[in-house]
Amino acid sequence: MKKNVFYAQSGGVTAVINASACGVIETARKHKAKLGRVYAGRNGILGALTEDMIDTTAESARTIAGLKYTPGGAFGSARYKLRGLDKNRAEYERLIEVFKAHDIGYFFYNGGGDSMDTAHKVSQLGAELGYPIVCIGVPKTVDNDLPVTDTCPGFGSVAKYVAVSTREAALDVASMARTSTRVFILEVMGRHAGWIAAAGGLAGESPGEAPHIILFPEIPFDEAAFLTRVIESVATYEYCVIVVSEGARYADGKFLAETGTKDAFGHAQLGGVAASIAQLVKAKLGLKYHYAIADYLQRAARHIASKVDVEQAYAMGKAAVELALKGENAVMPTIVRKSEDPYRWGVGKVALAEVANKEKMMPQHFITEDGFGITAACRRYLAPLIRGEDYPPYKNGLPAYVSLKNQRVAKKLKTEFVIK
Amino acid sequence: MKKNVFYAQSGGVTAVINASACGVIETARKHKAKLGRVYAGRNGILGALTEDMIDTTAESARTIAGLKYTPGGAFGSARYKLRGLDKNRAEYERLIEVFKAHDIGYFFYNGGGDSMDTAHKVSQLGAELGYPIVCIGVPKTVDNDLPVTDTCPGFGSVAKYVAVSTREAALDVASMARTSTRVFILEVMGRHAGWIAAAGGLAGESPGEAPHIILFPEIPFDEAAFLTRVIESVATYEYCVIVVSEGARYADGKFLAETGTKDAFGHAQLGGVAASIAQLVKAKLGLKYHYAIADYLQRAARHIASKVDVEQAYAMGKAAVELALKGENAVMPTIVRKSEDPYRWGVGKVALAEVANKEKMMPQHFITEDGFGITAACRRYLAPLIRGEDYPPYKNGLPAYVSLKNQRVAKKLKTEFVIK
Repeated sequence: MKKNVFYAQSGGVTAVINASACGVIETARKHKAKLGRVYAGRNGILGALTEDMIDTTAESARTIAGLKYTPGGAFGSARYKLRGLDKNRAEYERLIEVFKAHDIGYFFYNGGGDSMDTAHKVSQLGAELGYPIVCIGVPKTVDNDLPVTDTCPGFGSVAKYVAVSTREAALDVASMARTSTRVFILEVMGRHAGWIAAAGGLAGESPGEAPHIILFPEIPFDEAAFLTRVIESVATYEYCVIVVSEGARYADGKFLAETGTKDAFGHAQLGGVAASIAQLVKAKLGLKYHYAIADYLQRAARHIASKVDVEQAYAMGKAAVELALKGENAVMPTIVRKSEDPYRWGVGKVALAEVANKEKMMPQHFITEDGFGITAACRRYLAPLIRGEDYPPYKNGLPAYVSLKNQRVAKKLKTEFVIK
Repeated sequence: MKKNVFYAQSGGVTAVINASACGVIETARKHKAKLGRVYAGRNGILGALTEDMIDTTAESARTIAGLKYTPGGAFGSARYKLRGLDKNRAEYERLIEVFKAHDIGYFFYNGGGDSMDTAHKVSQLGAELGYPIVCIGVPKTVDNDLPVTDTCPGFGSVAKYVAVSTREAALDVASMARTSTRVFILEVMGRHAGWIAAAGGLAGESPGEAPHIILFPEIPFDEAAFLTRVIESVATYEYCVIVVSEGARYADGKFLAETGTKDAFGHAQLGGVAASIAQLVKAKLGLKYHYAIADYLQRAARHIASKVDVEQAYAMGKAAVELALKGENAVMPTIVRKSEDPYRWGVGKVALAEVANKEKMMPQHFITEDGFGITAACRRYLAPLIRGEDYPPYKNGLPAYVSLKNQRVAKKLKTEFVIK
């Protein structure tokens, strides 16, 4: 008797998480003899806990294909971490209860390290409770901090956005520096790992080209060295472009964004790390600055997605279903780098236990000795990930992103589950 | 005896100001019988004052063609406003001196209202000093605030960037709202006129689609009405997307975001309205927020430029040269809207005196009665301007923007001119 499939998106969404959803659904549809309906969680795992599931069979093949070029989380995602089995076993039991009620035999969880941990625990508990459930992770995180996999879907596109934006803004600043802005700061994501900030480094391909400074969370902020570098850059090139990770911090671990600096009116600055850096540059060097905060724009920018990233995101969704069909359980497909130049990649796999709750930082040899740039090795690693353009279709000058019906699966349980 | 041409870029650069430069240079090259060399000012008008000019004849046809897809100011721009003739006649006299020394008979000034004023005065003084110089303005400003012309090159592309970014970020916020960010704020440019913020309104094509609130400089900020609207939006759609102009202000005229510093034109330097709005939302409503500040990214984003805008930018450069060849003086070519649906446009002209130092605000009937949105009339006006994509070529996953040799024209004057 074939079982149904449950797919959920977890954590911060990306420009290509829906491409993974597309890979899962299209592949499952090709194996109707073995797989039942694909249900998706409305707002991620909350949809399973509250028995609020979406029936993806209501969506046309064309709409599902459109997920490949639509950013955000088409079914809704959630920032909701299930606690340990010992702390809140009831949540896991509820998941199994819902899966059982809807004859779900496969759980595909599309997320980062936390989500891999959840998927791993669900697989353990299912076996324990006598309702075996195949749990497969689908990697996703703009932060690129999942271990084992060479890269992580979502990262390549944000990397491309940041590199392109840095190059473009640098041209702007360069042309105005004589009489206007000298220092431009771009704040990017990556709270613990500097991968996204590093990608800004791809913008410059020749010596002297922006960015002139990258601030990584991995390197404690050294104010004096930083200011010296700003002065040198302005003296040499007339301007200075800085890419700063939101997670940049002092040696004591305190984030720069938390420093409580004040603006011209004495109001506490709320602009995060870019504003802090800007204030520092103004106060200590008296230079005119501008700053941009990419925030959600960077991870939603499907219009400038990396083709490699889109393909890998799709491949991970597809591979997850194929792994399940091969009888694998508690694993996550990975991206394997087979060769760097020319870039070739394949699909591997890893046990969920090995990726759960682990973070991959930038290795030391990817950051230049002065701590302000990326090395040639880092560039070789990053360069293939932003390659290729994969433009969405446009209508009226705007990307024609799809929206789903998101039709609810009829509830079967009488019990309610309250999210605390 | 044919005269040389001087071209300069002025003020904030755009994604397409180089397309205008391309139009000027390519058209001038087609009329070599009548026009001499095209010199460009290094850093705009400063290049003329300091006799630091670039010989564009050193650039290949291919490089010049590449200007059509390269953002920023290829020769350097400047925020430098010549004062009135009565206040600093020496500057105007110096311009004429340099033009005379290099046998320059044509001055093409690519800028906004301030620059049109300068070009106008140069033309007046040239005649007065017995060195007649043909002065033609080439319209440019992302703010879309030049009068007479239907729109202004640079605006369509920033409008497209803002509309696309708003749509993308809204998909992100919508998919996370249940457990994460409820209010997302995108801060955009537009110091006095709300055109850019209005363009964000194009992101939503059906009722309820983001943005839910637009804050225009033309509408005094009403805190209570704003907060009520945020509450309504979150209650109805689970989230609220706000596009706010950097020029948003209170009824007393004070900017929500004044930093207290001023630029070379004496305009208050803005920045931080998004943070102000975010703080308000947090303090009064306790909602989780995120905000993005597009800053230079929006006006440099050639990767998502509007095809219509690129074509119009080029056409304005071309028309400027053609007007000069027809014997016109002290005029600026304009974009004339011939029909709205289908959109058709042509090239007109206006006397510099009529556009100098004037700003075109959003008309009242373009803003909804509640002050938080755009009307159907506004949508009809804006929609054609963001139409069409005009992607630059890519290499290694990044736009392959051109860079010029920017070879200096040998100085002929013994006198130095010091910029104060």
